[in-house]
Amino acid sequence: MLNKLAERILSSEKNAIARGISLVENESKQAGELLKLLYKNTGKAYLIGITGPPGAGKSTITNGLAKLLNEKGYKVGIIAVDPTSPFTGGALLGDRIRMQDSGKDSDTFIRSMATRGSLGGLAKKAKEACEILDASGKDFIIIETVGVGQSELDIAQTADTTVVVLVPESGDAVQTMKAGLMEIGDIFVINKSDREGSESLGVALRTMLHLKMTRESDREIPVVKTVASRNKGIDELYDFILRHKLYLETKGKLELKRKENLLKQINELVNNKLEHKFWTDSRKEMLDKQISKISQREVTPYDFVDELFN
Amino acid sequence: MLNKLAERILSSEKNAIARGISLVENESKQAGELLKLLYKNTGKAYLIGITGPPGAGKSTITNGLAKLLNEKGYKVGIIAVDPTSPFTGGALLGDRIRMQDSGKDSDTFIRSMATRGSLGGLAKKAKEACEILDASGKDFIIIETVGVGQSELDIAQTADTTVVVLVPESGDAVQTMKAGLMEIGDIFVINKSDREGSESLGVALRTMLHLKMTRESDREIPVVKTVASRNKGIDELYDFILRHKLYLETKGKLELKRKENLLKQINELVNNKLEHKFWTDSRKEMLDKQISKISQREVTPYDFVDELFN
Repeated sequence: MLNKLAERILSSEKNAIARGISLVENESKQAGELLKLLYKNTGKAYLIGITGPPGAGKSTITNGLAKLLNEKGYKVGIIAVDPTSPFTGGALLGDRIRMQDSGKDSDTFIRSMATRGSLGGLAKKAKEACEILDASGKDFIIIETVGVGQSELDIAQTADTTVVVLVPESGDAVQTMKAGLMEIGDIFVINKSDREGSESLGVALRTMLHLKMTRESDREIPVVKTVASRNKGIDELYDFILRHKLYLETKGKLELKRKENLLKQINELVNNKLEHKFWTDSRKEMLDKQISKISQREVTPYDFVDELFN
Repeated sequence: MLNKLAERILSSEKNAIARGISLVENESKQAGELLKLLYKNTGKAYLIGITGPPGAGKSTITNGLAKLLNEKGYKVGIIAVDPTSPFTGGALLGDRIRMQDSGKDSDTFIRSMATRGSLGGLAKKAKEACEILDASGKDFIIIETVGVGQSELDIAQTADTTVVVLVPESGDAVQTMKAGLMEIGDIFVINKSDREGSESLGVALRTMLHLKMTRESDREIPVVKTVASRNKGIDELYDFILRHKLYLETKGKLELKRKENLLKQINELVNNKLEHKFWTDSRKEMLDKQISKISQREVTPYDFVDELFN
C-alpha cells in the first residue's frame, strides 16, 4: 500500500501527493513510514518562504511567482499555512480560492494547511509536506506563512530563501522589526508600492537593514518593489531569489543551512518520541493522583518530577 | 548554606532574594534545591503581567502601579524581562534606571532579567524568579514583558491577571491582534491617552473585544485610559485588577488557571530532564558520525532516530 503510494508520489501524481500530505496532516502512523520511503528522493527542491503581515499580498505574490517559475519550465509546489483566527479566516480562505487559478492549467500543486491545534505541530507538518512535494520532483516549493508568532517564523526559517513582504500601509518598518521579521528576511518586498508611503518605507527598511547584523554579512539584502496585483516586479523578485540561491550554493552555505535544519529536525523527532514514550498510563495516573497535593504545596513539582523518573 | 539562604528569603531579605534570583538566572544546580525548599511557601502572591509593544509605557505603568500597591500596604515585587535587541536595548535600560526610584524608599523589589540566549529558557527563569519573590512574602508580583514573540506571550500568560498596554501611536488595534495580544489580555490599557488617536483606538479595541471569543465569556474586558507619566488612570487600573482578582477567586477560576500552569510547568520540567538524560556522549557521537550520511540521503532521519532509541 504505502510502497505503491510512494511510487505514485515519485511519479508526481497529484492525487497521491494530496493523499500523502493528508497522512502527514492527520498525524497518521503511516506518515512516518511514507516519509522514510521518500527520503532518499528529497533534497533536490529549492524552498522559498514567503512571509509578512496579513493583508500584505503574500498570496498574490506567491501566485505570480509560481506562474513565472512555471513559464520558465520549473515545477512548483505551494504550501500555504493559514492560521485559523476568527479574524482572518475568511480573508485567507478568499485568497486561497483566488489562488487556485494558478494551479488549474499547470503542474503547480497547491495545498493549504490550517493551524488547528498547536502551531508547533504545524511547523512539523508543513516541513513534512514539503518533503513529499520535494520527492514528487518539484523544482521549487513555496511555503507561505503569516509572519506572526514564533512557530510561523520557524516555518519561514526552514526555507532556503526567505522573502518578507511588506506594504506601505502595514504601518512602518518598526512594526516589522518588532515582529522579528527583520532577522529572517533574505529578500524584502514592498508590495502595493504604487501607494503612498512606499518611498519612506523603502528608506526606513534600508536604514534598518544597514544597522542590523544580517544573516550573511557579505551580502546586501535587496528590497524589491512590486505591485503584485498587476504582476509588476515579480520578475525582479524572481531574479533576486535565483541570485540568492546561487550565492548560497557557491559559498557552500546552502549545505550548511540545510544541515542545521536537519539537526533541528532530528532534535524535534527525538523530543516528540521521548515525550510520547515517557507518559505511560502509570505515569499519567501518578500525575492525576499527585496534582492536587502539588497544588496544595504538599509536594513540590521538582520532587514530583524526580519521582516520575524513578 | 541553601537552608540559610531559604530562611533569609522567607524573612524577605533583599540581598537574599537577589542572590536566589541570580542562582535561577545562572541556571545553577543549587537553584533547583532552593526552589524545592521554598515551594511550600509559594502560591500566596498574586501575579500581574504587564505586556505590550515597545514604547507603550509599560515601565511607567508598572512603576505607578507598584507605588499605589505600596501605599495600600501591599508588598510588591517586579520582574522586568528585557529582550536584548540591538534596537531596544538602550531604551529599556533607560526605563530601568528611571524605575529604580520606586524601589528606593519602599519594600518593592525590582529585578531585570535579560534575554541572553534562549527566550524559552527565560520564561522558565522568570517563572522561577516569581516563585522566589512569592516565597519572600510579596503580595503582588508584576511581570513586565514586551509583547513580542511566543515565549514572551508565555510569560504573560503565567500571570493571574494580564494587562495589555497600548498607545494611540502604536498604530492600531489591528497590530495588537496580529501580535496575539488580543487573546491574552484580561484588561487593556490605552496609555498616553491624551494624544491623538486614543478615541479611535478605544472604539476599535472595544469592537474587536466584542467580536472575539474572550477567555472568560461571562465577563466584559475593561479598557482603561491612562496617562501614566502624570499618574492618571493608575487607580482605575488598580481597581480593575482587584476586580478581576475577585472574579477569578469567587468563581474558582484562579485555582483552575494555576493548576493549568502547574501542569505546563511539570511538562517542561519533564521535557528538560528527558532531553538532558537522552543526549549521552555516545548518542552525541552517533549523531556526529551519521549526520553526513543523513545529509547525503543515505540514511533517513527517521531511521536514525529509531536507531538512537535502540
